[in-house]
Amino acid sequence: MPTNLARRAALADAGVAVLAREGARGLTHRAVDAESGSPLGTASNYFRDRSALLAALVQRIGERLAPDPAVLAVLAEHPPGREAYAEYLRYILQRLLGDAPLALALFELRLESARRPEAAATIGQWQREAFAADIAFTAQAGLPGGAREIALFHYAIDGLVLDRLTTPIDPQTGTDEVVDALVAAVFGPAGG
Amino acid sequence: MPTNLARRAALADAGVAVLAREGARGLTHRAVDAESGSPLGTASNYFRDRSALLAALVQRIGERLAPDPAVLAVLAEHPPGREAYAEYLRYILQRLLGDAPLALALFELRLESARRPEAAATIGQWQREAFAADIAFTAQAGLPGGAREIALFHYAIDGLVLDRLTTPIDPQTGTDEVVDALVAAVFGPAGG
Repeated sequence: MPTNLARRAALADAGVAVLAREGARGLTHRAVDAESGSPLGTASNYFRDRSALLAALVQRIGERLAPDPAVLAVLAEHPPGREAYAEYLRYILQRLLGDAPLALALFELRLESARRPEAAATIGQWQREAFAADIAFTAQAGLPGGAREIALFHYAIDGLVLDRLTTPIDPQTGTDEVVDALVAAVFGPAGG
Repeated sequence: MPTNLARRAALADAGVAVLAREGARGLTHRAVDAESGSPLGTASNYFRDRSALLAALVQRIGERLAPDPAVLAVLAEHPPGREAYAEYLRYILQRLLGDAPLALALFELRLESARRPEAAATIGQWQREAFAADIAFTAQAGLPGGAREIALFHYAIDGLVLDRLTTPIDPQTGTDEVVDALVAAVFGPAGG
């Protein structure tokens, strides 16, 4: 990665950490400078204003959440069907729950999008593109379910991640079990 | 309501508004005073410290989210089953989506509980009690589903509310349709 791209990514990572820890109001260029150990003014050099900073965070979250092609290749060996679907969902959960600051920062960005139209524009576009990509991937992989089912999984996975990273209502049920129950619910009982 | 209870509720409502608009970091006793048009120091008189303020907000959110007994009486006339279940879910959604600051403040409190143990204690206890009450209500009303199904609905409804109050991925599908799809998923297709 060229130096300035690596620097940009490091600053965005610092922004993600600040956002998760302090919330949207704590996210300032100055806080990003401090978090990344950069001289004052560095974040402002890379991200002109708050909109640019938010856009950089969204982009960085997308990069960090991107699936590992090697894992996808293994998952693609499963015959397409409900079990493969459950594996993909488990892999999404693993990426979100395994990087709590990332998932929490994403929730903060979504709440910020309820407050500020410029945040809503950036995050909304990213979310709609991700949703469209999920639909295209599902169809191309021959997996069950269309837009409606994928939307239900999105809602349930978001709620589950929020629950598990905060104050779980049903902590004794493992997330693998929750995924199995969800897949069984949406696609009918096993063997069906 | 005695004057000091009404004053306490008004201050908590101001806190909910501040929390939804400014996030957890914007929630201070001073901001609650300003939001409620009270003299400086009023919120501190009612809520000794931040923990007491958060606890008051959780209590107030519970009061505002409480179902109307008259509506529950009408819902109880449905024969217990999937359609009645869908009606209860629609009523929950109506209360959450119909009072966006309330729902957004609740998300802020949950994110705050990932940051501060005292917030987690208050909110976690409230959530676990509400979950237990849902399970008891479902059993007592003769509705289908146990703890596992109720947890799935919680996750999906939370994710749906977050989605609809921020940047919806699938806005052309109405929430009634999403509820029908969820209920059909969890309890099997209609007539089944």
